[in-house]
Amino acid sequence: MKLTCSQAALNSNLQCVSRAVATRPTHPVLANVLLTADEGTGKVSLTGFDLSLGIQTTFTAAVEQSGAITLPSRLLGDIVSRLSADSPLSLQSPGTPDSDSASNDDDQGADEQGAGLSFQLTARTGAYTVRGMPAEDFPELPMAQSPVAIPLLAQSLRDGLARTLFATSSDEAKQILTGVHLVVSPSSLEFAATDGHRLAVLTQTNDNSSVQDDGFQVTIPARSLRELEHLLSSRPDETIDLYHDQGQVVFLRADQVVTSRTLDGTYPKYNQLVPETFSRSFTVDRVLMSTALERVAVLADQQNSVVKFSVDVAERQLRIYAEVQDVGRGDESVPLSDGEGGNIDVAFNVRYLLDGLKALPTPEVKFQMNNPTNPVVLRPHGGDVAFTYLVMPVQIRNS
Amino acid sequence: MKLTCSQAALNSNLQCVSRAVATRPTHPVLANVLLTADEGTGKVSLTGFDLSLGIQTTFTAAVEQSGAITLPSRLLGDIVSRLSADSPLSLQSPGTPDSDSASNDDDQGADEQGAGLSFQLTARTGAYTVRGMPAEDFPELPMAQSPVAIPLLAQSLRDGLARTLFATSSDEAKQILTGVHLVVSPSSLEFAATDGHRLAVLTQTNDNSSVQDDGFQVTIPARSLRELEHLLSSRPDETIDLYHDQGQVVFLRADQVVTSRTLDGTYPKYNQLVPETFSRSFTVDRVLMSTALERVAVLADQQNSVVKFSVDVAERQLRIYAEVQDVGRGDESVPLSDGEGGNIDVAFNVRYLLDGLKALPTPEVKFQMNNPTNPVVLRPHGGDVAFTYLVMPVQIRNS
Repeated sequence: MKLTCSQAALNSNLQCVSRAVATRPTHPVLANVLLTADEGTGKVSLTGFDLSLGIQTTFTAAVEQSGAITLPSRLLGDIVSRLSADSPLSLQSPGTPDSDSASNDDDQGADEQGAGLSFQLTARTGAYTVRGMPAEDFPELPMAQSPVAIPLLAQSLRDGLARTLFATSSDEAKQILTGVHLVVSPSSLEFAATDGHRLAVLTQTNDNSSVQDDGFQVTIPARSLRELEHLLSSRPDETIDLYHDQGQVVFLRADQVVTSRTLDGTYPKYNQLVPETFSRSFTVDRVLMSTALERVAVLADQQNSVVKFSVDVAERQLRIYAEVQDVGRGDESVPLSDGEGGNIDVAFNVRYLLDGLKALPTPEVKFQMNNPTNPVVLRPHGGDVAFTYLVMPVQIRNS
Repeated sequence: MKLTCSQAALNSNLQCVSRAVATRPTHPVLANVLLTADEGTGKVSLTGFDLSLGIQTTFTAAVEQSGAITLPSRLLGDIVSRLSADSPLSLQSPGTPDSDSASNDDDQGADEQGAGLSFQLTARTGAYTVRGMPAEDFPELPMAQSPVAIPLLAQSLRDGLARTLFATSSDEAKQILTGVHLVVSPSSLEFAATDGHRLAVLTQTNDNSSVQDDGFQVTIPARSLRELEHLLSSRPDETIDLYHDQGQVVFLRADQVVTSRTLDGTYPKYNQLVPETFSRSFTVDRVLMSTALERVAVLADQQNSVVKFSVDVAERQLRIYAEVQDVGRGDESVPLSDGEGGNIDVAFNVRYLLDGLKALPTPEVKFQMNNPTNPVVLRPHGGDVAFTYLVMPVQIRNS
């Protein structure tokens, strides 16, 4: 392999694929990225793959000779990121006549005889040799075989992830709950996540007319989606193509592929959890409510993060308070902009409420509930985003 | 105690003194800050003290009734920092007729009967009760008895700390080396720090005519000085008064006092370590040198952080390289703007070099040395800052 590229291109693409490289690889080659160069197309491709999440990017370079090698992701990334942005880089690996190598030291020959492959990177001020491993040792990136692409607006995808990812479970034992559930129907796209204590559901209209029959459902690991979300941040107005096949999803954009295994198992029928009718409701300002909760949380977090609500519909007032024995007590008042049904006392884990309020898109939030032991639903007040956040109250002992 | 103050004043003063509150206090009251209010002067004072470092600040407030109490630093700081900046705060603690308290809950009476003291903080939207401890339990902040103040420009003090603090030892077993050594003479001020591997010395001219006899020397713990450095960042043009007494130093500014114990023991005679003559020297661009070292450090840090220098005086070139078995090799070239004496090969711990280069104030740096096993000195090239950074080379095995 022999090629010349810009520091900027190599650096940004390395940073990108390194996000799919395992921090604790189960096999040495999984700490590496796969670098391939094609003389015919003038394309260089980089791949990171932890056997669950894979990221592949492609960029153009002056490729003199095709080739492929795997290289230590962290080490190469650390060197390249510190090179001057205006320095062209020349990359070379064995199989190429070593004519104008910058490094002439003695053990160069020994390196090429040895277990590893010696890869050379030459910049204006210096030259680096890094030990690689053969491209053949790198596992093949699984690509979905389905020919049906679901086109998704990057902005919709980001929005769906931002409003649900936080509600997934971080407990690996909870298997299917560690992912976001995606429901693709011919005319809509639904994102859902729950950890058993709260549920976030966002429904978008989307023209998925290419989807077959009634569509499909799939649960994708949160870790894969977090990396996807990160990659999406740069270009919100583009379209991403989603492919789905047995045990695998692929997100495809112009020069990047994100591939992920899916989670096995049956996702809970979450729609059954959301009550259809509510006897009580009230509306509050989202920011006023969040800041009041954050202050009371300082006390609540000293013990079990429980805050109590006392809703006074007639007075149009919500009292939020927490008390911790031997530490102290906090009391806040938030005005209600409307309220229906009787007064109610109910308690919550303040962290679940704060997470939900952050994900709600409107300045005002509608709380809907029946009684202190049944699920409470938070919805945007006004606007046209179909978002539901359900949270289970905490049982109050003495109220 | 009863007073009203702004959120901004209470918040900034709490954040300030909290830096002297121990993270793992040896006694419960040391997790608290001392709050005292004086009706006569209209002054509120806050104190944090971990028995080594103490910080006391004073601000004006509408004090209705004098009093003193200690309050949990972290908890109070977390609440106050989350309160709205435009909300006036009213603070009240027992010993005050509880006439217009915002909190009317039932166990209020029980609190005041209990072990702790109940302190109330009332803002526009809410009210907080925090359990405090008696002011009498708080250790007295030691103040130096010496009447002689050494006036120091805050900017000089910051400069002295920035160029030496990093070279102190972080190994508590090294006792005296965990501090910065301050030498105050009638006309100068010297800062020195060493961890046994490198030494940083900055000498400033300073009118200390108030100092008695030949002046004094004192070693102050790095932890205290780091907090002092942090506090100094806001107002570089003011004057700080330094007082020194048996085992104690006090830094005094208009509304803040920083007090610290000093370190016992005899500080090494560091001036004896700096060679008086050098057979070799060269000058390099500081930024070019630092960036080249940072890149080679990526490889060097894989093993023992050793980088090798190969100085070619005739070619006006410095080669910097590191090689790690089974990982790779990095080679950089840095041009020399001048050079004297013969060529030399010498090795360093790259971290010590990078630290020193960061502390040097000029665009160009002069390296001075004799042979590969003797101390190497880095000095600013040009400019009028009297700064010396000495670093011990690493023994090279095969070069």
